Amino acid sequence: MERSLIEWLRARLPGREDLLVGPGDDAAVLRGAGDCDCVVTVDVVMDGVDFRLAEIDPRRAGRKALAVNLSDLAAMGAQPTAAVIGLVLPRQGGESLARELYEGLLPLAAEFDTVIAGGDVNSWAGPLVVSVTAMGQVLPGKAWRRCGARPGDAILVTGQFGGSILGKHLDFTPRVREALWLAERCDVHAAIDVSDGLGLDLARIATESDCGFVFEEASVPIAEAAWKLAAQELAAREHQPPDALEHALADGEDFELILAMPETEAERLLADAPLACGLTRIGTFTKERTLLRQRPTGELVDFIPRGYEHRLSE
Amino acid sequence: MERSLIEWLRARLPGREDLLVGPGDDAAVLRGAGDCDCVVTVDVVMDGVDFRLAEIDPRRAGRKALAVNLSDLAAMGAQPTAAVIGLVLPRQGGESLARELYEGLLPLAAEFDTVIAGGDVNSWAGPLVVSVTAMGQVLPGKAWRRCGARPGDAILVTGQFGGSILGKHLDFTPRVREALWLAERCDVHAAIDVSDGLGLDLARIATESDCGFVFEEASVPIAEAAWKLAAQELAAREHQPPDALEHALADGEDFELILAMPETEAERLLADAPLACGLTRIGTFTKERTLLRQRPTGELVDFIPRGYEHRLSE
Repeated sequence: MERSLIEWLRARLPGREDLLVGPGDDAAVLRGAGDCDCVVTVDVVMDGVDFRLAEIDPRRAGRKALAVNLSDLAAMGAQPTAAVIGLVLPRQGGESLARELYEGLLPLAAEFDTVIAGGDVNSWAGPLVVSVTAMGQVLPGKAWRRCGARPGDAILVTGQFGGSILGKHLDFTPRVREALWLAERCDVHAAIDVSDGLGLDLARIATESDCGFVFEEASVPIAEAAWKLAAQELAAREHQPPDALEHALADGEDFELILAMPETEAERLLADAPLACGLTRIGTFTKERTLLRQRPTGELVDFIPRGYEHRLSE
Repeated sequence: MERSLIEWLRARLPGREDLLVGPGDDAAVLRGAGDCDCVVTVDVVMDGVDFRLAEIDPRRAGRKALAVNLSDLAAMGAQPTAAVIGLVLPRQGGESLARELYEGLLPLAAEFDTVIAGGDVNSWAGPLVVSVTAMGQVLPGKAWRRCGARPGDAILVTGQFGGSILGKHLDFTPRVREALWLAERCDVHAAIDVSDGLGLDLARIATESDCGFVFEEASVPIAEAAWKLAAQELAAREHQPPDALEHALADGEDFELILAMPETEAERLLADAPLACGLTRIGTFTKERTLLRQRPTGELVDFIPRGYEHRLSE
């Protein structure tokens, strides 16, 4: 959600002690009636913005609509439980499209033990809109926030970054299993999933946690797709094309996790190379609130995060 | 949701014992971790379909987006707890529109003790879409279903019907308080909220409950707006305009409740005229699966329900 709108909204919400985490994090957290807190998140995806139905199998669109929500639950360290689906279908071919969307979505729901509890179906003259609300659970007080990183914490990331537009943005695996594995074993101080860009989402943790960071350029795990994209752009002789590292830092829709955890714990963890998707330390959170990147030469330079920012006009 | 799509989906959902009510009712019911079941419902409203932003104050659109969900919770006999809001805003003027939507939505949330837990904001070149997911709670096993009506049960309705298009469809009060009051005192066998038309939604209870009904035309509480609409149409000399009763039966978006309960209980209840919004017995569910209307003359004739049906093309 756009920052200014979140601030505006936060100022207008009555304080509620059963709302443990409100607007502005990856998901909301409500005090549960039982022995778990309830985590809930909504994401809306649209034809022409998040995918192009004219170019892809609708099953991939349906899958993505659920996957982005599961990724938000992963970023809270939560176990998914259920989801509800709101569809706005184009009038022509709506029913068969709805089935295809579900055909993409249901296997993912099954894979992550998420019950599809219900939905709403509408049609109109406009493009497809899919709204998914996913719910999950986490031990009381244990939901990962963006605001818990501490100076000295290691910055860890799952997977690789960049070039997601070449396919991963539709077919990524939400890092739910990795999150649950880590939640059981480590003292994760803060987390976010990368939707708008590694650099931008890392800066969000820093802002929310009142700290800064230094990351090492050479440590950033760059996806093959980022190299491929950079090479294509170079071949097309585009004016100053971004290199693979810049793609990794700014492309977004990687849906990998950024995690903050105590350095000693991170080092112990990394010694075992525990995650099949990869787990990499890329830097350190700092007390000083500056954002820095360390060149392979060792030089420290200011980092200006770029990525996808939701911009709304007044 | 369209019937054929629900059937298709139901056949593909794995059985889950924690899903007490799945797709096809007013809301889903999940077994809660604590001492309540969790009720969840999603509804998506769109500019040009559910309201016309060019003609109304956006606050009313925001209010309606939440109100239709609270009405679904009322239809389950559930106490609302929280909601999350997904917005797809037109790019131009998106942020101020978002604030206006929230300005309409927040007072209603406060009125019904519903915490706005989070949301998602997007923008595009298309019209406004608002997706609201509302959650509520109900005592274990006590959620009202559509399928519980029994032959001999009285048919009760809250409020009045028809002509909602003249304003009520935007400004209605979801019958949450009435539902909770009734849930505490009566053995409600089945319930639904009237979104698509009194006749059509009554028929849905009958279908789901494997029974029929007889209703008395003279008992149907007709809203002033239905009379007004019928008079306007008559004045405009429209070809065979529907009369006020037909408006009451078929207009929809009344967001009143239809309830099935034992006849003796209904009579006891009605003797006290308990609800300020009105509570009226309009007929009886029957063992025979025929749908009948009783004319003021006493004559019984077949009833063919008409109303708003979601029709999707293949």
